[in-house]
Amino acid sequence: MIAVLKPGATEQQIQSLADWIRSQGLTVHLSTGRYQTIVGLVGDTTRIDEDLLGSLSYVETVKRISEPFKSANRKFHPDNSVIRAGDTLVGDGHFAVIAGPCSVESEEQVAEIARAVKQSGATMLRGGAFKPRTSPYDFQGLKADGIEILLHAKRETGLPIVSEIMNANHLPMFEEVDVIQVGARNMQNFELLKELGKTQKTILLKRGLAATLKEFLMSAEYIMAGGNENVILCERGIRTFETYTRNTLDLSAVPVLHELSHLPVIVDPSHATGSAKLVEPMALAAAAAGADGLMIEVHNDPVHAMCDGAQSLTPEQFDKTMRHVRLVLDAITDIEH
Amino acid sequence: MIAVLKPGATEQQIQSLADWIRSQGLTVHLSTGRYQTIVGLVGDTTRIDEDLLGSLSYVETVKRISEPFKSANRKFHPDNSVIRAGDTLVGDGHFAVIAGPCSVESEEQVAEIARAVKQSGATMLRGGAFKPRTSPYDFQGLKADGIEILLHAKRETGLPIVSEIMNANHLPMFEEVDVIQVGARNMQNFELLKELGKTQKTILLKRGLAATLKEFLMSAEYIMAGGNENVILCERGIRTFETYTRNTLDLSAVPVLHELSHLPVIVDPSHATGSAKLVEPMALAAAAAGADGLMIEVHNDPVHAMCDGAQSLTPEQFDKTMRHVRLVLDAITDIEH
Amino acid sequence: MIAVLKPGATEQQIQSLADWIRSQGLTVHLSTGRYQTIVGLVGDTTRIDEDLLGSLSYVETVKRISEPFKSANRKFHPDNSVIRAGDTLVGDGHFAVIAGPCSVESEEQVAEIARAVKQSGATMLRGGAFKPRTSPYDFQGLKADGIEILLHAKRETGLPIVSEIMNANHLPMFEEVDVIQVGARNMQNFELLKELGKTQKTILLKRGLAATLKEFLMSAEYIMAGGNENVILCERGIRTFETYTRNTLDLSAVPVLHELSHLPVIVDPSHATGSAKLVEPMALAAAAAGADGLMIEVHNDPVHAMCDGAQSLTPEQFDKTMRHVRLVLDAITDIEH
Amino acid sequence: MIAVLKPGATEQQIQSLADWIRSQGLTVHLSTGRYQTIVGLVGDTTRIDEDLLGSLSYVETVKRISEPFKSANRKFHPDNSVIRAGDTLVGDGHFAVIAGPCSVESEEQVAEIARAVKQSGATMLRGGAFKPRTSPYDFQGLKADGIEILLHAKRETGLPIVSEIMNANHLPMFEEVDVIQVGARNMQNFELLKELGKTQKTILLKRGLAATLKEFLMSAEYIMAGGNENVILCERGIRTFETYTRNTLDLSAVPVLHELSHLPVIVDPSHATGSAKLVEPMALAAAAAGADGLMIEVHNDPVHAMCDGAQSLTPEQFDKTMRHVRLVLDAITDIEH
Repeated sequence: MIAVLKPGATEQQIQSLADWIRSQGLTVHLSTGRYQTIVGLVGDTTRIDEDLLGSLSYVETVKRISEPFKSANRKFHPDNSVIRAGDTLVGDGHFAVIAGPCSVESEEQVAEIARAVKQSGATMLRGGAFKPRTSPYDFQGLKADGIEILLHAKRETGLPIVSEIMNANHLPMFEEVDVIQVGARNMQNFELLKELGKTQKTILLKRGLAATLKEFLMSAEYIMAGGNENVILCERGIRTFETYTRNTLDLSAVPVLHELSHLPVIVDPSHATGSAKLVEPMALAAAAAGADGLMIEVHNDPVHAMCDGAQSLTPEQFDKTMRHVRLVLDAITDIEH
Repeated sequence: MIAVLKPGATEQQIQSLADWIRSQGLTVHLSTGRYQTIVGLVGDTTRIDEDLLGSLSYVETVKRISEPFKSANRKFHPDNSVIRAGDTLVGDGHFAVIAGPCSVESEEQVAEIARAVKQSGATMLRGGAFKPRTSPYDFQGLKADGIEILLHAKRETGLPIVSEIMNANHLPMFEEVDVIQVGARNMQNFELLKELGKTQKTILLKRGLAATLKEFLMSAEYIMAGGNENVILCERGIRTFETYTRNTLDLSAVPVLHELSHLPVIVDPSHATGSAKLVEPMALAAAAAGADGLMIEVHNDPVHAMCDGAQSLTPEQFDKTMRHVRLVLDAITDIEH
Repeated sequence: MIAVLKPGATEQQIQSLADWIRSQGLTVHLSTGRYQTIVGLVGDTTRIDEDLLGSLSYVETVKRISEPFKSANRKFHPDNSVIRAGDTLVGDGHFAVIAGPCSVESEEQVAEIARAVKQSGATMLRGGAFKPRTSPYDFQGLKADGIEILLHAKRETGLPIVSEIMNANHLPMFEEVDVIQVGARNMQNFELLKELGKTQKTILLKRGLAATLKEFLMSAEYIMAGGNENVILCERGIRTFETYTRNTLDLSAVPVLHELSHLPVIVDPSHATGSAKLVEPMALAAAAAGADGLMIEVHNDPVHAMCDGAQSLTPEQFDKTMRHVRLVLDAITDIEH
Repeated sequence: MIAVLKPGATEQQIQSLADWIRSQGLTVHLSTGRYQTIVGLVGDTTRIDEDLLGSLSYVETVKRISEPFKSANRKFHPDNSVIRAGDTLVGDGHFAVIAGPCSVESEEQVAEIARAVKQSGATMLRGGAFKPRTSPYDFQGLKADGIEILLHAKRETGLPIVSEIMNANHLPMFEEVDVIQVGARNMQNFELLKELGKTQKTILLKRGLAATLKEFLMSAEYIMAGGNENVILCERGIRTFETYTRNTLDLSAVPVLHELSHLPVIVDPSHATGSAKLVEPMALAAAAAGADGLMIEVHNDPVHAMCDGAQSLTPEQFDKTMRHVRLVLDAITDIEH
């Protein structure tokens, strides 16, 4: 970490800063130029508050050389992480396909979709029991009953299940849920992240609508700092000025997150685009960009889905998309060897 | 609400849609054109899920004529709301000035700032006891001790206090807190909003970094739908491509929210700009735009503030800013008569 | 096009609006409801100014059912366009690979790169002779000399050349240039677009940093409305809050533009990401998403490139990327049959 | 300017970099740490290409300490500039009020509006003769005839006139136009800026929809570097995710631009908000924030304006707004003394 001091910084100010840095367990490297003094902070700067340093009256600018995240950082963990989800694996060549309805509606619905997506090659079943909706008057999910329905489908098909949590108090209900999803709106619900960090559950963390990639990794760090290293990252589109798609899928997130972190990165083309027609091309693109998996909404009757129907595939469309994704994955495999 | 059907919609599809609409307690108004059929939904469409309707295969587009929020809507509540905060009022001519440190650090600090800002005309004292920080390694607040320190300052100065909540389980600690703040990152933490809706506490709801004004009002609606109508809205900047300021303060939010809603709207120029130098011009602009109040960070030693020091005013700067704000408010008063 | 009138619209206002619509050569379809009147405009509404209509005091909202572009619209031209570029083709299965340096620096540089990229399978050579730079003090390109150098490389290698125009007065210099590029910053330089519309040159139109996909197509329409239908669209990233990449590559633009228009769509991963490391994954993703080509910066000595070196591939890296792109293209070909 | 080198930079690389820096007329200040070498570039770094430097393989990061603009920079020109516009002045206490129709439609229209706005205190008359429209099928302005109409109104009322240029070839037509406007879409039409830099005309430069404040100043620098220092900056809203207003007015631009530059800064609330109702509150806010002037659309018959009618004030509304603006300006004057 480097702090560039303002031209007028006094000897006393520089000394007091150096003392404070040393009190944080770091080494100070002073470089006194004719015009400006540059202060290097050497050691583990993860715990240094960049804002605090930058707010000192005689500091012009602060620049981190190393990232402020540690557990999630590839520098300290060069190999790709492989995360367990039920009896399947995600990352480092293990490609996850998480499919299912946006909302759990009924036992028949979920069972039928689960059988179909398993047949097409899905490795996990998703379904929302607790639904974050913009309006308090929109359908909020079947809650505990929804979890039960998912568990029933898990017993029937053997597929691990993924479902979203909105409140740490609900954790007991998620005991048999294999992967707990943190939605985009809760990516910086730090209280929830801390609670999940105390468990050993696998967490699927979705990127917030306005979160930078570094903030996204800092949220993963919240979970990991608590002792839970089972985190899967999910790019699902960011909010931009473009209105044709619901969000703008930022696929460069895949190679960037792979560069910065060892955690697996999956892509949700359904929520990113909000349009069933765009799911396949974006799923193929995600696979080609090196994603470790996909999360795709599948509904047996999209036109009556209780939410987000416009972005769901039918089981038939999903089957076709899966065949095409495998073609790209095979091509990519050739590439990486 | 109007649904424009696709050119090929069949008689049967139209009939089944009309039946469903009626089953929701609404009246149907069909307009069959040569090319397209338009379906009007007349009545209280607040509970109609726009996404669901738009997802039907034969629906081209759905357009709300009335907004999907009700309790917060000016149409159903034409007069400005006046919200109580301790023994002060906010809205409809009652201008709130909420001042204090970003983080509560010590009893002396808070007491000194409280006395100073009261002297300069602040109507409430703010201070963070629970701090949402991007990094798990940054200072997270004094928590319960921080609340105690604020209550002590309240007893001494008589100023009502404002503090942020991050977890509904902490509500008991906020019993004597006059105004509970919901931060930008929790604006769509719907579980928290619902819990706050069950209380009668005054809630200061901050706009999310990527929230549209309509989503902002829907979050207020979450609280109000639960029975708690004591909501103050706070514009605090949105995230854009501009990097010179921390966020982009969207002052047009003030007249737009006043048009759409009866709730008071205050502005936080400190977090919006992230720069002490910009606080006064933006505070004056907010007052001129018709805001019902300001929220300003004040610190007795900004260069050592534990967080966000760069955006804090000293008590002297705050005093000067307050005198200037009053000049603008006086000018504005002349305008509105 | 549909105009929803405000509840209080008078009979006379409705009549005068209907008369005006008819005077524009359109048919009026009035639907008078109990609460609101809806006016349908039937016919070619391309020339109707949506803003004008929406500004009438008694109009609540205006909704286009059909898009305001015509020549670029797939509805009126269902087959994919194939655009000629020198003796190569772009679109409908003809995959373009445009490679070369950001700036033309010298004859040797361009000749060497041209030979290398041709060998690796590039179908066109790019090079900037006129450079749009944010700073007036940065290198502005070799101008006429740069064009000469490109033409020399064209004669030597047979590769058609692509170069950017910044001023319609320079058109005479571009006589032998096969494809004229319009840069992102000039996407709404309507005067330039109109002049290019009067030629029969092939135009490579780049999406503006803050342009919606519809605005992008309207800019293509400016060229085509003048009589020049030889337009290739190029997605090159949009400006968002994310700062890790230079821009955010919006790959969903590929299927969306293919849905709305018959024009070929290529992708520039070099400018979009600003980082050599991200070029290959994004090139593969673009190919998988169905792009009709790629535009990639290649430099024989990236660390001394006069501009944008950080995003250039070496000829060796380009060769490897091209082999990988072909693997994905082959997989995709299997898909589409 | 500071370049932080990568840990592995060799002695030879550092030497070659230092030689190159000296060859640019700068002094080198090397600071060799245990881990990293920092290279300071001392002197006039305006002409150093930051991208070029950052692209070197052994450079980790480049940080400008001083801004890359010079003529527009307050550091080299501490006093506020006062710019002449006809026989009026703008900046340093001279408040400009530019009013008039979006498009020039007829002699009667312009004359009537000109008389009205002069009466209400406008200091200049605006009117578009060349109109940048998103669609080639929308009204493009009366062109030369429009300029004539404006000049006629100027002769009648004595108001200096402001009109937009879209093509440097049209400059001869603007000979008697007092202030030439460069629209948001042409803010980075560098060829146009360079041509305007060769004149001594006063230029009103509007901020681009996706331009950072630094890029905005670099565009002003393009004009000034050519020798024309008569530049007025105009904030007119940026493009964000918010759709309720046409753009998001970034009022913090006013104090930020005043801090970075000596040029006057005016605000256009009409284009920023796209809504007549929001013009007054945003005009008052701009005045309170310290703007040097306002640009407001006024139309005698907004509902029939050929473009942008929804955002125009009537002369009566403008008169009222002007009276209110003066109240705020008077309050602000008290502040600044």
